[in-house]
Amino acid sequence: MKVCITGAAGFLGKRLTQQLLKQGQLTGSSGAQEDIEQIMLLDIVPVEGIADSRVRVVAGDICDAGLLAESIDADVDSVFHLAAVVSGQAEADFDLGMRINVDATRLLLERCRALANPPRLVFTSSVAVYGGELPDPVLDSTALLPQSSYGTQKAVGELLINDYSRKRFIDGRVLRVPTISVRPGKPNKAASSFASGVIREPLAGSEATCPVPPQTRIWLSSPRSAIANLLHAHELPAQGFGASRVVNLPGISVSAGEMLESLERVAGKAVAARVRWQVDPVITRIVSTWPGAWDCSRALALGFRSETDFEAIIRAYMEDELKSAA
Amino acid sequence: MKVCITGAAGFLGKRLTQQLLKQGQLTGSSGAQEDIEQIMLLDIVPVEGIADSRVRVVAGDICDAGLLAESIDADVDSVFHLAAVVSGQAEADFDLGMRINVDATRLLLERCRALANPPRLVFTSSVAVYGGELPDPVLDSTALLPQSSYGTQKAVGELLINDYSRKRFIDGRVLRVPTISVRPGKPNKAASSFASGVIREPLAGSEATCPVPPQTRIWLSSPRSAIANLLHAHELPAQGFGASRVVNLPGISVSAGEMLESLERVAGKAVAARVRWQVDPVITRIVSTWPGAWDCSRALALGFRSETDFEAIIRAYMEDELKSAA
Repeated sequence: MKVCITGAAGFLGKRLTQQLLKQGQLTGSSGAQEDIEQIMLLDIVPVEGIADSRVRVVAGDICDAGLLAESIDADVDSVFHLAAVVSGQAEADFDLGMRINVDATRLLLERCRALANPPRLVFTSSVAVYGGELPDPVLDSTALLPQSSYGTQKAVGELLINDYSRKRFIDGRVLRVPTISVRPGKPNKAASSFASGVIREPLAGSEATCPVPPQTRIWLSSPRSAIANLLHAHELPAQGFGASRVVNLPGISVSAGEMLESLERVAGKAVAARVRWQVDPVITRIVSTWPGAWDCSRALALGFRSETDFEAIIRAYMEDELKSAA
Repeated sequence: MKVCITGAAGFLGKRLTQQLLKQGQLTGSSGAQEDIEQIMLLDIVPVEGIADSRVRVVAGDICDAGLLAESIDADVDSVFHLAAVVSGQAEADFDLGMRINVDATRLLLERCRALANPPRLVFTSSVAVYGGELPDPVLDSTALLPQSSYGTQKAVGELLINDYSRKRFIDGRVLRVPTISVRPGKPNKAASSFASGVIREPLAGSEATCPVPPQTRIWLSSPRSAIANLLHAHELPAQGFGASRVVNLPGISVSAGEMLESLERVAGKAVAARVRWQVDPVITRIVSTWPGAWDCSRALALGFRSETDFEAIIRAYMEDELKSAA
């Protein structure tokens, strides 16, 4: 079987590729486990550092329908659509956000519709689709009222994937992924970037600022959970989803203040002291419109999983990312 | 001030034009009532039969950005965006629905964003944005889960108008309009077309079929209410809308069986007997996913209005449409 990953040069894309290469199989169009023969890695920059004969790297603009047609073969079975302009950037550059988060998604869906068989398509959505007055916790039945262009664009993608799936053009699965922490690497332009930065930088011996007040609650899960849940979403039979292909993934609800208390307990006072509070009104406005918790009983019933405490997430990060460096 | 109406050759567009010409004023960009100097009537077919020097008729494809730029002057103050592919047709021709209901809306929003001042934009959405398991009545806080491509496309339009308004590119107002009955003229490809047909045809002496079972509940209002509410939506100050520009308009909840009982009470047994029950599974599937009632306390608080019984709607139809013919 053939798999395509968009946004493959990103942090989740790389981890997903490694995991797919390692396990070597996925549920194919036959409904049974099949060997993965090819993984197309699509991104604006060429994916580097993955040496495996099953991998084919394609670099180019995902808004180019010709590139999509050339690089997604007619017999592709599965697509993981991770390419996105992140929240802070989509807010600052409206047109870029619309182009990548809406237009490219639309082009990709059209390409998938043209394939020999409707492919399984896993799409990552976000806490940012919610906004306005929210119940605590947010429920599956709660209306979306995004207060950012990123959230709007992800909500549009969700609607289209539900309809393309209903029409049997594709077999879509949408995961509303909690804010991921602890993300390795550098800060990015996501409004949630700090949720990794306030842990990652101090552990690396650097200073960091926390741009939201200590009481700001965030719905979080780890990179490990995100990858496991992406794969689980792919493997589930379509019937399990019922009328909606969208799932609010499990996570933990933790405040910025509690995150730093966890850091102190795991890594000590000196490490936690490397974080300064410095409220950024733009980031605080965006993040405070996101739900701090949602009901995830549907996700749990479908077999999705997450950690249950933030200290375990910090320890997993140290294990995955710092051990090799140490 | 200048006004543009898209879908102006349609039934609502024509009535709205007549009403605007009659009243001669609307709230302009100054915030005060201003004289309407020009109304641009945009549709794929030229609008006919309106002789008034303030009217400018433009016929062409609303998906043509060049046409939009030419026909919507830089100093347009207000847009009523009524152009749409109706529900039955959007379900049968997915690409046409996407083109008109999504792409054209997007192009229009971009044209509005390019104008001298962010124009007021009134957009008509639909009961079809809802679907799946619904509370009775549906609430403003109920999640959208459209079960038709039309509903999906309208929901996308809503999201974009909310975000364009939040970004102050436009000053948008979205009305979820109940199924309109009694619509004059001929049946159309809307799944709800019967809701007018089962009243209009018997009153005109013709046979009609009702394609949904008698117990199917529909959320209805009259053409008079629709026009009054479109104008009211335009006139309201933006602050009144709060975090969402979308309003669930008032209506009445009536079953197909009750509609025919009302017809019999107003027009007699012989007239009502011209309707045959003949269930159409495609129409029944679409209509049965729509809410039969929604809570409209927000709309009422904002000053939107509707009739309170269906007999009054039938009588108003006979007054507006049949008196002159008789």
